Amino acid sequence: MEQNTAKMPIRCKAAVSKVAGEPLEMEEVEVAPPRAHEVRIRILCTSLCHTDVTFWRMKDLPAMYPSILGHEATGVVESVGDGVVEVAVGDTVVPVFSAQCGDCADCLSDRSNICSGLPIRPGGMPRDGTSRFSFASTGEPIHHFISVSSFSEYTVVDVAHLVKIEPGRIPHEMACLLSCCVSTGVGAAWKVAAVEPGSSVAVFGLGAVGLAVTQGCRMRGAKRIIGIDLNPEKIKIGKKLGITDFIDPNGTDGRTVSVVIKEMTGGGADYCFECIGSTPVMAEAFKSSRMGWGKTIVLGVSNDVAPISIPSHDILKGRTVVGSLFGGLKPKTDIPVLAQMYLDKELELEEFVTHEMGFNEINRGLELLTQGKCLRCIIWMDGAREKENVVKVKPKENGRACEAA
Amino acid sequence: MEQNTAKMPIRCKAAVSKVAGEPLEMEEVEVAPPRAHEVRIRILCTSLCHTDVTFWRMKDLPAMYPSILGHEATGVVESVGDGVVEVAVGDTVVPVFSAQCGDCADCLSDRSNICSGLPIRPGGMPRDGTSRFSFASTGEPIHHFISVSSFSEYTVVDVAHLVKIEPGRIPHEMACLLSCCVSTGVGAAWKVAAVEPGSSVAVFGLGAVGLAVTQGCRMRGAKRIIGIDLNPEKIKIGKKLGITDFIDPNGTDGRTVSVVIKEMTGGGADYCFECIGSTPVMAEAFKSSRMGWGKTIVLGVSNDVAPISIPSHDILKGRTVVGSLFGGLKPKTDIPVLAQMYLDKELELEEFVTHEMGFNEINRGLELLTQGKCLRCIIWMDGAREKENVVKVKPKENGRACEAA
Repeated sequence: MEQNTAKMPIRCKAAVSKVAGEPLEMEEVEVAPPRAHEVRIRILCTSLCHTDVTFWRMKDLPAMYPSILGHEATGVVESVGDGVVEVAVGDTVVPVFSAQCGDCADCLSDRSNICSGLPIRPGGMPRDGTSRFSFASTGEPIHHFISVSSFSEYTVVDVAHLVKIEPGRIPHEMACLLSCCVSTGVGAAWKVAAVEPGSSVAVFGLGAVGLAVTQGCRMRGAKRIIGIDLNPEKIKIGKKLGITDFIDPNGTDGRTVSVVIKEMTGGGADYCFECIGSTPVMAEAFKSSRMGWGKTIVLGVSNDVAPISIPSHDILKGRTVVGSLFGGLKPKTDIPVLAQMYLDKELELEEFVTHEMGFNEINRGLELLTQGKCLRCIIWMDGAREKENVVKVKPKENGRACEAA
Repeated sequence: MEQNTAKMPIRCKAAVSKVAGEPLEMEEVEVAPPRAHEVRIRILCTSLCHTDVTFWRMKDLPAMYPSILGHEATGVVESVGDGVVEVAVGDTVVPVFSAQCGDCADCLSDRSNICSGLPIRPGGMPRDGTSRFSFASTGEPIHHFISVSSFSEYTVVDVAHLVKIEPGRIPHEMACLLSCCVSTGVGAAWKVAAVEPGSSVAVFGLGAVGLAVTQGCRMRGAKRIIGIDLNPEKIKIGKKLGITDFIDPNGTDGRTVSVVIKEMTGGGADYCFECIGSTPVMAEAFKSSRMGWGKTIVLGVSNDVAPISIPSHDILKGRTVVGSLFGGLKPKTDIPVLAQMYLDKELELEEFVTHEMGFNEINRGLELLTQGKCLRCIIWMDGAREKENVVKVKPKENGRACEAA
């Protein structure tokens, strides 16, 4: 039984981002109790995503300093604020950067997953914009990050951003993957593109999101799945998850990727997914899409201020460009569906976890991610792995490093 | 009974475009007999479209000189080439710039209307690229225009570009409107956007295509239809066809149109249609679309080489941009449906015809169109109106000029 800490501030360890691109600093922070509609959770594990890296390196707004990054996680409810009935102390939850208030026009519609009731609010809690984090030493407030801030032993999250997970069924580190990357990719193939059986698909970027797209397309019955990545080592994991063909943009004898894809598919792919966040790649993905019904799905969060550039004559020929956050999924509705698919062995998650390590090693994890050396690195909070009696994942042949404390 | 001219060249009058932007010159031309899969038709009437103007003014490729422009028309089959069984001598037909070969992957799919069997071929006939037109005086060949070239008393069109019209039911000048502008607009609302009842819609540009979009959206049950046009006189005709609100971009007290639309709709329109062909307007239409499910439909053929510019962060929030040629319609399948809708008084066509005149006055018609003074100007070939016993259209109160010879 844990000590009752409800309604009191909690002092704990957090990895704080103080200067753009500089290593996170492990600090003692104070986490205020949850206010109305808020939940304080103890983080069990958190994984590292390229969106964390994008904001970690970003010098200007919407990045804010100091802040606590991290948004893929699994946690346990420590205490709840007034009005919270959906989850209770001890529940296992995954926090999600995208809200589902349940009441707004978007949440009430099948067509949208972009909750307009609680839009993303940079730096603070979604309802009042204030922070629940401060430095224990000085009391100086610390900014939140896209309503999650999981690089901390404790965090406060609005209940609209939490999904309850049935305990003891799906391992924590697998649930963690559903809170962003895998859902984003699988959802894009499933909800946004609605890929049809027999389709041809091009996936630009075989990071975790691109590989999740690949898996989603295979699940939807795509016949040809072309993976594009600058790192030829991605072929192996790509093939495991469904790619049938691979293009290394540096190995095309000077032809552009779109020219190669048009040749391979006889005119262009039915669906092109941009999973990098590069506007020139978005333009190339568009060029690779088939006239008549080709769809380009933009998933990558771009660092560029440069807009996507689309030739107007080309889009006229029946082409579509569509953007998607969190794969078009509604977190509370769809994450439990994906969790069940994992339990039914329809959805592969283990392959995504290439590294696991303790919280103190988080900067090493970020380094591996920026170097393209890992897909997902699970960061375990101290003691969380043993304490929660996690289902042990077997070491992988493909060099997966099980380095948890 | 007409003289049998089959298999012989026909000498007739055509309005030839010789120099970009200069008045068309009335010339005697020779029209060769149709080859296999081709049909020679006698034009009854042709109407003037902004795409004709765009190409008439274009200095470089794909514009070619000399050429015979014109692509909205109604005609009668004069003779057919080998292998043509779909139409016979004497049939009433409308030629369409967009083909429907019936055999390619696109024609066989419900998802596309962009025939890949016979792609648009600049300057010549779609199957062999050669011309059937020459100057009677010199024998110099004259280029075709997007497979139609209706600014001529006779033209040769591939059978894949022809739609047979039941004779004596729909007036020729109304059938003519279905060969491009009205179909493009109504189809965009119906097939491409699939506008839902109760939707909010913004229509950028209230020319004939924009007004056809307006009508299509009203037919689909849109609740709020905002028309945007620099000419405030468009309010009157716009209201007749379905607009509920009007924005004059010069009368917004310095606010952008997208800001005004977001205010009017509480966040953005569900569907934004760009019917002008201006890439800056396409970008503004995109900005005016609602987060979560907003769709921007691009219909206008741009004169610009500049691409459409779309902020990648904005498209991520569930927005879509889709392009459409000929409103996503398959000509042979869908034009008869629209013709029936006109006969059933579900589709309004008369309002689009603001001017009618004889073939010799075609340059005056082009001038009126470029000055924004007419929606559709019907050009009647000499004698065609009386000879074909056309259902007379009553003179309109709104100043419609019935000036046919």
